[in-house]
Amino acid sequence: MDAQAPVEPISPARLQALSDGIIAIAATLLILEVKPPGAEERVWSALWHEWPSLAAYAVTFLIIGIAWVHHHNLFHQVRRVDRPLLFLNIGMLATVSFLPLPTATLGNHLRGDDAGPAAVFYTLSMLLASLWFTLLWHHLCRRPELLHTGAREHARNARRHSLLGPVGYAVAALIALFSPVGALAVSAALVVYFIVGRRAPAARTHLARGA
Amino acid sequence: MDAQAPVEPISPARLQALSDGIIAIAATLLILEVKPPGAEERVWSALWHEWPSLAAYAVTFLIIGIAWVHHHNLFHQVRRVDRPLLFLNIGMLATVSFLPLPTATLGNHLRGDDAGPAAVFYTLSMLLASLWFTLLWHHLCRRPELLHTGAREHARNARRHSLLGPVGYAVAALIALFSPVGALAVSAALVVYFIVGRRAPAARTHLARGA
Amino acid sequence: MDAQAPVEPISPARLQALSDGIIAIAATLLILEVKPPGAEERVWSALWHEWPSLAAYAVTFLIIGIAWVHHHNLFHQVRRVDRPLLFLNIGMLATVSFLPLPTATLGNHLRGDDAGPAAVFYTLSMLLASLWFTLLWHHLCRRPELLHTGAREHARNARRHSLLGPVGYAVAALIALFSPVGALAVSAALVVYFIVGRRAPAARTHLARGA
Amino acid sequence: MDAQAPVEPISPARLQALSDGIIAIAATLLILEVKPPGAEERVWSALWHEWPSLAAYAVTFLIIGIAWVHHHNLFHQVRRVDRPLLFLNIGMLATVSFLPLPTATLGNHLRGDDAGPAAVFYTLSMLLASLWFTLLWHHLCRRPELLHTGAREHARNARRHSLLGPVGYAVAALIALFSPVGALAVSAALVVYFIVGRRAPAARTHLARGA
Repeated sequence: MDAQAPVEPISPARLQALSDGIIAIAATLLILEVKPPGAEERVWSALWHEWPSLAAYAVTFLIIGIAWVHHHNLFHQVRRVDRPLLFLNIGMLATVSFLPLPTATLGNHLRGDDAGPAAVFYTLSMLLASLWFTLLWHHLCRRPELLHTGAREHARNARRHSLLGPVGYAVAALIALFSPVGALAVSAALVVYFIVGRRAPAARTHLARGA
Repeated sequence: MDAQAPVEPISPARLQALSDGIIAIAATLLILEVKPPGAEERVWSALWHEWPSLAAYAVTFLIIGIAWVHHHNLFHQVRRVDRPLLFLNIGMLATVSFLPLPTATLGNHLRGDDAGPAAVFYTLSMLLASLWFTLLWHHLCRRPELLHTGAREHARNARRHSLLGPVGYAVAALIALFSPVGALAVSAALVVYFIVGRRAPAARTHLARGA
Repeated sequence: MDAQAPVEPISPARLQALSDGIIAIAATLLILEVKPPGAEERVWSALWHEWPSLAAYAVTFLIIGIAWVHHHNLFHQVRRVDRPLLFLNIGMLATVSFLPLPTATLGNHLRGDDAGPAAVFYTLSMLLASLWFTLLWHHLCRRPELLHTGAREHARNARRHSLLGPVGYAVAALIALFSPVGALAVSAALVVYFIVGRRAPAARTHLARGA
Repeated sequence: MDAQAPVEPISPARLQALSDGIIAIAATLLILEVKPPGAEERVWSALWHEWPSLAAYAVTFLIIGIAWVHHHNLFHQVRRVDRPLLFLNIGMLATVSFLPLPTATLGNHLRGDDAGPAAVFYTLSMLLASLWFTLLWHHLCRRPELLHTGAREHARNARRHSLLGPVGYAVAALIALFSPVGALAVSAALVVYFIVGRRAPAARTHLARGA
């Protein structure tokens, strides 16, 4: 609203706090898109009927949780925020805030005739959200003065590794054309892989730092 | 979204801040599930008709408030966050964020034919939410290096005490089969017990620490 | 969910942060209860028709803003949080989180046949919310060891002054029986009085402290 | 709720934290106003039909993001908060929290017969939100004792520059009378101008400070 005023340097801590808030709210709003069984419905059969919404809720909540962890990892390396980093971050937040819409769409359609497009929309939205992280790491690699000392190598690795998200969701989008439920399962598998798959290397890094 | 990047150590303070945000939002969203009297309804009779929703709102809000106090107590003991603790915590948050759904379900059904299943769904959701706390304490007992010095004994006690929630809600779920209103009353009684029942020992602990 | 574990002392800062979150969310959710003009409606006439909702939105938003200022003032004096203060605060938050419901009710009914009960419900909800502040100050007066040194006198004054809210809303509730719009106007007048009415004494206190 | 108690001085940091919360929530709630494709609709055609809602979502999200950056810049200069600054800030927050309503209105109407009034309502709401920033800077210019040392000149410049928002949205409101889509495009152009247009001067200021 004030295009002329120069932007004061924003501390990574403040940007992180605002981002945490938006990520937390996006995750918590998801449940509002799941319709509670109405007074005239049978509870168990309505919930059973809603399983696509419940499954989409669970998968998206965990994806947003992992986005938070990833965001934390990224800003852990940042010493100074410049203008492009600030607006890349706002773009990422706009995409994460958008996720309740494709999640609700998938929940509404997974049992229906139009499940394929719904699953494509869902996986492409996830692809877009994860792509911002690659863009953020790419910007940090090109401007190493924004990083803490010694984080350059880490940022290069993280940029390469951050492609797993977009590539994984692109595969899921292709699968969605044939099997919408399969696309949701692949998204869930990406989440599970992240949660359990890399414990050992993380510990290694940690030891190396502690040493 | 980035399964390959190792997780940087997350400070207990940051994890607590994100958790506080999600818990606060889940509590505040509850009211959106209570339908305000429409323009064509009589205000008092519509509110009276909504008493199950209002009672479920009050009980769930206080349960979430107690979950926040419990979460604070737990992280008060934590010195370092490891990966399993992080993801157990995200699992707990997903369950707490889910609570508006069973709360709305109970509000919609407590006066109706399907009140039993609604009350079972409500109490089992609470059981699940409280079980995560037992899992969190259990993990801390097995990894005492995550705790502050001298907190091991406290964590063991807390793990044992944390079973009260799951056991209490299991009893409430059994009662729900016979008396749905009774199950809500038992949930409310657990809240009241927590709020007023342990003031003296808490004070004792406090004195012991202050000494 | 863990009635047995003693409550660790919670810092005023953390309790304030959680409270800030809930108060901020309650204020921001208010707009969701105002129905945007639908595709088949004329924009200006639909907004004009919604004036009670818009007026109720504005008044409640400012009331919640003042509750935040009041809450800040209160915790500014607090050195230590005990268990009753914690649960009085959670009770206050439950009531503030509840305000979107009476606000929506008033918005739905102010132009209709049942405007009186809606305005009574609205003003009694405000009375209840403001009463918690009197209870909080009363608890602090009875337990001066929770206050910063020298704040005892301040707390006694604040307890007395905090009655203005409940008394003002009780008057507004009486007026609601005759004039629902008048009750909303009195609520707005209380807000305006708070915002502009006490600038001078606040400045005096401030100078006295700065000296 | 307590008109008599003097207001304790509120630190800029706390006011900023509450404001961040409200701004974050307002941005994240926007998506709830976009209707997900229902079970009986075709996904792609429903999303295509919803393009005005999606475009309004994106523009408003970025406008709120810029309001956050602007708010950060403003409070970066503030050393002390007085009562008028506090209530000007609450007024600004009430207006930003209000933005989901005009955004939903524009989304509902941009393809319809009443698109003009919807676009006027949208741009006037943005004008109002941006005007608060001019009022905030104006107050700071008149009370330089609230600013950090040496920020007076900055505040004068910022007050002048802050008029770009209100003037830009006033122009957009005029355009709305002839071309509702054009008004949304002008709003988007203001956003883009802010994001990319002033990188160089910001860098200059930064260098000047760093020197």
